[in-house]
Amino acid sequence: ILNYEVEKSKLNDSNHFRELLEVFDNPSPTRNFTIQHHCPEFTSVCPKTGQPDYGTIIFTYVPDKICVELKSLKMYLQRFRNEGIFYEAVTNRIMDDFLAVVKPRQATVESRWTPRGGLNSNIIVQYPDVPLG
Amino acid sequence: ILNYEVEKSKLNDSNHFRELLEVFDNPSPTRNFTIQHHCPEFTSVCPKTGQPDYGTIIFTYVPDKICVELKSLKMYLQRFRNEGIFYEAVTNRIMDDFLAVVKPRQATVESRWTPRGGLNSNIIVQYPDVPLG
Amino acid sequence: ILNYEVEKSKLNDSNHFRELLEVFDNPSPTRNFTIQHHCPEFTSVCPKTGQPDYGTIIFTYVPDKICVELKSLKMYLQRFRNEGIFYEAVTNRIMDDFLAVVKPRQATVESRWTPRGGLNSNIIVQYPDVPLG
Amino acid sequence: ILNYEVEKSKLNDSNHFRELLEVFDNPSPTRNFTIQHHCPEFTSVCPKTGQPDYGTIIFTYVPDKICVELKSLKMYLQRFRNEGIFYEAVTNRIMDDFLAVVKPRQATVESRWTPRGGLNSNIIVQYPDVPLG
Amino acid sequence: ILNYEVEKSKLNDSNHFRELLEVFDNPSPTRNFTIQHHCPEFTSVCPKTGQPDYGTIIFTYVPDKICVELKSLKMYLQRFRNEGIFYEAVTNRIMDDFLAVVKPRQATVESRWTPRGGLNSNIIVQYPDVPLG
Amino acid sequence: ILNYEVEKSKLNDSNHFRELLEVFDNPSPTRNFTIQHHCPEFTSVCPKTGQPDYGTIIFTYVPDKICVELKSLKMYLQRFRNEGIFYEAVTNRIMDDFLAVVKPRQATVESRWTPRGGLNSNIIVQYPDVPLG
Amino acid sequence: ILNYEVEKSKLNDSNHFRELLEVFDNPSPTRNFTIQHHCPEFTSVCPKTGQPDYGTIIFTYVPDKICVELKSLKMYLQRFRNEGIFYEAVTNRIMDDFLAVVKPRQATVESRWTPRGGLNSNIIVQYPDVPLG
Amino acid sequence: ILNYEVEKSKLNDSNHFRELLEVFDNPSPTRNFTIQHHCPEFTSVCPKTGQPDYGTIIFTYVPDKICVELKSLKMYLQRFRNEGIFYEAVTNRIMDDFLAVVKPRQATVESRWTPRGGLNSNIIVQYPDVPLG
Amino acid sequence: ILNYEVEKSKLNDSNHFRELLEVFDNPSPTRNFTIQHHCPEFTSVCPKTGQPDYGTIIFTYVPDKICVELKSLKMYLQRFRNEGIFYEAVTNRIMDDFLAVVKPRQATVESRWTPRGGLNSNIIVQYPDVPLG
Amino acid sequence: ILNYEVEKSKLNDSNHFRELLEVFDNPSPTRNFTIQHHCPEFTSVCPKTGQPDYGTIIFTYVPDKICVELKSLKMYLQRFRNEGIFYEAVTNRIMDDFLAVVKPRQATVESRWTPRGGLNSNIIVQYPDVPLG
Ligand SMILES: [Ca+2]
Ligand SMILES: [Ca+2]
Ligand SMILES: [Ca+2]
Ligand SMILES: [Ca+2]
Ligand SMILES: [Ca+2]
Ligand SMILES: [Ca+2]
Ligand SMILES: [Ca+2]
Ligand SMILES: [Ca+2]
Ligand SMILES: [Ca+2]
Ligand SMILES: [Ca+2]
Ligand SMILES: [Ca+2]
Ligand SMILES: [Ca+2]
Ligand SMILES: [Ca+2]
Ligand SMILES: [Ca+2]
Ligand SMILES: [Ca+2]
Ligand SMILES: [Ca+2]
Repeated sequence: ILNYEVEKSKLNDSNHFRELLEVFDNPSPTRNFTIQHHCPEFTSVCPKTGQPDYGTIIFTYVPDKICVELKSLKMYLQRFRNEGIFYEAVTNRIMDDFLAVVKPRQATVESRWTPRGGLNSNIIVQYPDVPLG
Repeated sequence: ILNYEVEKSKLNDSNHFRELLEVFDNPSPTRNFTIQHHCPEFTSVCPKTGQPDYGTIIFTYVPDKICVELKSLKMYLQRFRNEGIFYEAVTNRIMDDFLAVVKPRQATVESRWTPRGGLNSNIIVQYPDVPLG
Repeated sequence: ILNYEVEKSKLNDSNHFRELLEVFDNPSPTRNFTIQHHCPEFTSVCPKTGQPDYGTIIFTYVPDKICVELKSLKMYLQRFRNEGIFYEAVTNRIMDDFLAVVKPRQATVESRWTPRGGLNSNIIVQYPDVPLG
Repeated sequence: ILNYEVEKSKLNDSNHFRELLEVFDNPSPTRNFTIQHHCPEFTSVCPKTGQPDYGTIIFTYVPDKICVELKSLKMYLQRFRNEGIFYEAVTNRIMDDFLAVVKPRQATVESRWTPRGGLNSNIIVQYPDVPLG
Repeated sequence: ILNYEVEKSKLNDSNHFRELLEVFDNPSPTRNFTIQHHCPEFTSVCPKTGQPDYGTIIFTYVPDKICVELKSLKMYLQRFRNEGIFYEAVTNRIMDDFLAVVKPRQATVESRWTPRGGLNSNIIVQYPDVPLG
Repeated sequence: ILNYEVEKSKLNDSNHFRELLEVFDNPSPTRNFTIQHHCPEFTSVCPKTGQPDYGTIIFTYVPDKICVELKSLKMYLQRFRNEGIFYEAVTNRIMDDFLAVVKPRQATVESRWTPRGGLNSNIIVQYPDVPLG
Repeated sequence: ILNYEVEKSKLNDSNHFRELLEVFDNPSPTRNFTIQHHCPEFTSVCPKTGQPDYGTIIFTYVPDKICVELKSLKMYLQRFRNEGIFYEAVTNRIMDDFLAVVKPRQATVESRWTPRGGLNSNIIVQYPDVPLG
Repeated sequence: ILNYEVEKSKLNDSNHFRELLEVFDNPSPTRNFTIQHHCPEFTSVCPKTGQPDYGTIIFTYVPDKICVELKSLKMYLQRFRNEGIFYEAVTNRIMDDFLAVVKPRQATVESRWTPRGGLNSNIIVQYPDVPLG
Repeated sequence: ILNYEVEKSKLNDSNHFRELLEVFDNPSPTRNFTIQHHCPEFTSVCPKTGQPDYGTIIFTYVPDKICVELKSLKMYLQRFRNEGIFYEAVTNRIMDDFLAVVKPRQATVESRWTPRGGLNSNIIVQYPDVPLG
Repeated sequence: ILNYEVEKSKLNDSNHFRELLEVFDNPSPTRNFTIQHHCPEFTSVCPKTGQPDYGTIIFTYVPDKICVELKSLKMYLQRFRNEGIFYEAVTNRIMDDFLAVVKPRQATVESRWTPRGGLNSNIIVQYPDVPLG
């Protein structure tokens, strides 16, 4: 069982993670264009079982003044490698970090997970919030 | 032929099944985000022929205060393994149980069944109810 | 060449076919839920060439008071095995029979045919009728 | 290089082509139903290079009083086999011929072409015309 | 490492690239029809690493008075072969060039890139600009 | 239930079926080349249930003096449409008919069937007979 | 957790299972032909966890004097539904039962299982035994 | 119906076709390496029906002193566009032409045809000839 | 950059890893049957870049006296999560551990890796060693 | 048209290319194991047309004393980006370079190219040379 408890206090400090994200100037800020990044090599740790979880994180956003730099996005996602966190929580936390740093006009974060116990899950978070019918 | 009649009276008591479902606090209740669980290992028994049916159950929902816990969802679905129940009835009953326990803002339950007699069926139930044109 | 002319007068009596369809009570009539049946083993006969045609019939409907029983749907579709009828006509006739017996709130019947002369066709019929823009 | 110039004057007379299209009475004219024909064996000749082009033509339409007969549609499309004509022009010309003969309530003609010079193209023409936002 | 700096000043002069695009008269200007070109053999150079990037560029547009000629589109895209430019910038620059020369009624330019560092990206630019909800 | 008993005595006379097969001279008899025909529209009737079966028949053979003519092969296979016969028997009977008429140097007949009761079957017959290790 | 212990003593009596298998006379015993049955709806129970396992069983055999009857094969496989048995043991036990009843000239039994703990397994058993290099 | 009879006498003169094939020196004649060309845009005419046939021709060969030049191979295959010839005959004739001009150490010519009357065929010719068991 | 250097001395002690592997008695030791385990959630760390690598490990073996237990195989593979080791070395080391503990009659270990720098690799190790032609 | 003639004399000096290849010690030289590298981002220039060609290069080899280092393999393949060379020649030249530097026990180099003029090609070179039947 992995020792995902290591440095738990520091890891739960989300600011510590998000400062890895680097940005660059939107090359076409007068347009509402869309950027999508597929990140199929995401892994974190299930807090209940201590076993690793594996998934794909997909960012789809309309940038405002800045865009996220790809290599820094990779380094940011790797910080979850030994982090104990549930599917629903990690997807919302990644959205919180993304919004705080990149400040997009619109964004979706989707996580798609490999099967556990014969079930597989997806989580989809959107900004701005979607009103229900 | 499987003896799916065993304990029929108790099985038809739906509260008995749904109490297997466990929940946890929605980690991001201020957002309308979406959770999807694919459960491809569902099996029940056809009440007419006594033969097993096989299908996939897909839950797609916007949680309100609570989310369903994955392992308990698996245990809940396994309770139908020796239950005699038709496609249309079991899909609606799963939705009833899900609504009663998880109380989501929005939910869809879809069942997709393997072929029987050269035909294969899907059932889709939505909450809140969809008005027709 | 198949003798699809046999009993032509009787076969053209559509009531003769549709009485094969059996129904059961909708287990959840207060909801507008959707049922889909894929029937990939349909065959009829081309009236022009006397050659068999092969296709898939897909029913998608919102039941009202009753649902169609699967085995009777199979027996009904088999009645077209030696029936001489064109793609467009058979798809509309199946919809007519389905509406007359099952009386759904909403229905689509789609037929998808294997290639003939290097071309392959699909026909889609909807109820209630779709107004054009 | 193919001699696609043969009988060019006659070939450019579009009425000459479209008179190959045969029709039959719509078996269900009170409904707005949809017919789709996939024709993956289309070939014409590039007027610039004299080389053959290969593509799929897809008709999707809501018939009014008449439907197009399949074998005549095949014979009509074969008339383009040695015809020198560009992607955009042939797709519009097929739509013109189809509208003139079949007079549908609604129609789409789509052509999908195999790669040339590492690029592959699709053309989509709709009737009635689509207003732009 | 490729010498993508060669003639950088000239390459950054976008007019120099776009004059490669040739056009022809729209054969059906009274219709709003759609043309799509898939260009899966695009390559440019990452300005940060000097390494080649590979992607597919997809043009989808409604022509106004003129259409883009396919071979010239290929030659235009090849001009980026040794050009140092980021994903987001090149997709917007291709749209700028396309709008300037082809003046379409509507257009989308999408780029889909092969994986780098385990991540793969898509960029979608639309004209006219899409208002956000 | 289909009346597959009709003319049973005549149908069981296999010579009656195989005389539908027409042949033409092998255009290259000095070579051992291979011909393969895929026939995905085969249907016969299950003698036990009276229900139709659906499958694909695949012929792979090295012709000797003659080849089978395609249209006659289609007409021959259609003769099984209302014939009551099991998977294993029909595959062997088709091989017997093929060997008797076409006299190939080498042949394989394979049948692949759609699911029945959740199981699907393939039968493979070879000529000359395959010795077992 | 399923009560797979029920009637354990009787279930472990393999003769009790295999007597469900029915056979019929090989219609072509002078040939070495091959029969393949795919059974994608197999389920048993893991003896360690009490959780259901799901898999596909594939029989490939050269019959000698008799063939296995399909419906009885289905009923036989259903007997494992509540049986506690490991992947490796059940595949070998199915081969033992098959050999004892059907006495084929040659046979392969393959089981392919859905993922457990992120791993998925296949087991392949052959008769007669395969000598190792 | 296409006038494939035009210049029949000249077309049947196979030398007239094969002289379109151009060759270049094998760049590595001391090795037995393999070259494969997939040609998915082949079309000829059925001599019986006058209707076009469509297929893919695949060349796989070990060159000796020379290799076939790709553009000339394309021009050679286009010569069959209006040629009336059966599947089996055209595949053998292409092999004859290829052997006569390219003189390879080893060669396979395979043709794969689109469906006609619900059946689709492949022809495989090999050089040197394959002895039968 | 991950701190994969942690406990490097202990991690390089391969015995420390392999003692996680648990075994059970081969249920059918008189047969040479085959077991295959697909493990698509493998991750280790590149010693050169400190970046995580992701791959699938596939075990295919003929057991002798014992079989590997699945859950222990999972725990064993997880030990490489923070281990710095190259593709070729880790595949051979896993084979060494597997042979030392499971002592199979025959075994293959294959690793398939996700792309790095636009290239993706597979490594295949076999036991007993394969003599080269 | 790309100026692929630049530095032609130097580029044709193959030693100049192959010295980019770096190697490391085979971690398991006592085994005959297999390494496969897929390189889908290869591009060179057609010497006849001056147009870029695109393909995938696949290396499959049994290392002897040394293995090829992945990043250097990437840099080596990039050297062909502006090199004018035919399919057959470049595949053999890559094999020559690979054999000269890596000295494997066994090797295959395969190139698979995107379509040109509606045809697509693969080239397969093996070491040691394959004797023909
Ligand atoms: Ca920062
Ligand atoms: Ca978990
Ligand atoms: Ca049922
Ligand atoms: Ca009735
Ligand atoms: Ca017809
Ligand atoms: Ca063209
Ligand atoms: Ca210009
Ligand atoms: Ca980049
Ligand atoms: Ca005859
Ligand atoms: Ca019995
Ligand atoms: Ca288990
Ligand atoms: Ca023909
Ligand atoms: Ca141990
Ligand atoms: Ca690495
Ligand atoms: Ca060097
Ligand atoms: Ca070329």
